[in-house]
Amino acid sequence: MTGFVSLVGAGPGDPELLTVKAVRRLREADLLLYDALVAKEILELASGAHCFFVGKRARTKSVQQRTIERLMIRAARAGKRVVRLKSGDPFVFGRGGEEGLALLEAGVPFEVVPGVSSAIAAPGLFGIPVTHRGLSSGFAVISGHSEKSFGPFLEALPAHSLTLVVLMGVATRAALAQKLLERGWSKRTPAALLFAASTPRAAAWMGSLEGLLSIDSHSLPPDEAGTIVVGEVASLADKLSPPQPGADTSLSQSRGSHGF
Amino acid sequence: MTGFVSLVGAGPGDPELLTVKAVRRLREADLLLYDALVAKEILELASGAHCFFVGKRARTKSVQQRTIERLMIRAARAGKRVVRLKSGDPFVFGRGGEEGLALLEAGVPFEVVPGVSSAIAAPGLFGIPVTHRGLSSGFAVISGHSEKSFGPFLEALPAHSLTLVVLMGVATRAALAQKLLERGWSKRTPAALLFAASTPRAAAWMGSLEGLLSIDSHSLPPDEAGTIVVGEVASLADKLSPPQPGADTSLSQSRGSHGF
Repeated sequence: MTGFVSLVGAGPGDPELLTVKAVRRLREADLLLYDALVAKEILELASGAHCFFVGKRARTKSVQQRTIERLMIRAARAGKRVVRLKSGDPFVFGRGGEEGLALLEAGVPFEVVPGVSSAIAAPGLFGIPVTHRGLSSGFAVISGHSEKSFGPFLEALPAHSLTLVVLMGVATRAALAQKLLERGWSKRTPAALLFAASTPRAAAWMGSLEGLLSIDSHSLPPDEAGTIVVGEVASLADKLSPPQPGADTSLSQSRGSHGF
Repeated sequence: MTGFVSLVGAGPGDPELLTVKAVRRLREADLLLYDALVAKEILELASGAHCFFVGKRARTKSVQQRTIERLMIRAARAGKRVVRLKSGDPFVFGRGGEEGLALLEAGVPFEVVPGVSSAIAAPGLFGIPVTHRGLSSGFAVISGHSEKSFGPFLEALPAHSLTLVVLMGVATRAALAQKLLERGWSKRTPAALLFAASTPRAAAWMGSLEGLLSIDSHSLPPDEAGTIVVGEVASLADKLSPPQPGADTSLSQSRGSHGF
């Protein structure tokens, strides 16, 4: 009997934002390989699985990536059900495509279980719709990992043409803002910096593109992945996000404390 | 006791791609207002709710939108738990923001339950990662509802700068392709037209940007919403998508029959 590999999206953090299928795959798993940003409560669902943290560290990426692929392939060939769990969706900056190709090459059957992507859900949980009639008829999602990764795209992107969502861009936020200002985006364009949406640690900074330039790093939560949103829709956060009476606790948590 | 409204994303179609929280909200609902594209199996989860189809039709949009908002507000004020269920994510072309603002104005508490967006999941389920190292470091999601809605954005978007995902663009696909060709995108850019991802009716056309110009409408599934993907990542579908032995039935269904 051949095992198989499920490349599974874990969503933005809250275990309740896992899909039903993801929960089922976790419960059935023999081996679970998970990244950073996956909550303990989610890992506990895989009660029958050996669990390994395979989160990447800078400078050792390529080696670790090969190791992950080898682990998956070896276990599947031994008949195991392997879950490769990634925060958000496996195909949004998740290397899901690369891992799928490695499995294909090894002849190991696999499937993709899409997840709720932080690119859309983090803004949404803080009251920012990525599209909104009259404000934005589209959005772009880019990586802020390095200036090199977003520079060329932003240089060509016309100012104010759509909502911009930047993942992994907390460290490069000033360079991002500077680039947008140079390209003609107004310094008063609403902007938001969102952390740990849907978790008890949720927190947000709301301001303007100009304000992004001067945020003191010491005021930001350490070791949290952040989502940056730039565009008029960010102005709706004030209206759509405050915790509201009658809504449940997980809601007010997910919307977090604004400003720190 | 005040009721409240949950703006809930239903995901791309497969009931298993609902979030755990969405399932819970459906089970607890007193009133369910749902759009087109929501499967019967999903509606059946709301076994204690009155269910109303409030899908929009052309020409009567504004009236119907006000009606939806009035229904939600009236029910919540009467202490009901209202679920407003939208396909995909409520904030991706879902009018979730507008409905949230209407609820806020009426003083009705509400929450947002993000869903798996077809913008990411439909490509993913057909083997197309919206981002992939070396091929695409970002993606844009726009509405293809009318040429007016995407024209200005595409005119400004630099050719081949990222993966382009177009929702509601089946009818306008030729105008879209024409615009991209005029803007310098290569006619051989891989392109895909995806229908009903994650459901038993899943089907896909895979070709090139040039090919999008000449698809015979009669060969397409009628009455299905489609997702268009343009970009080098679409070339991975051949490798990452064929149904594979060992994977479960829902997988091979979700990946559908390619070509029709």
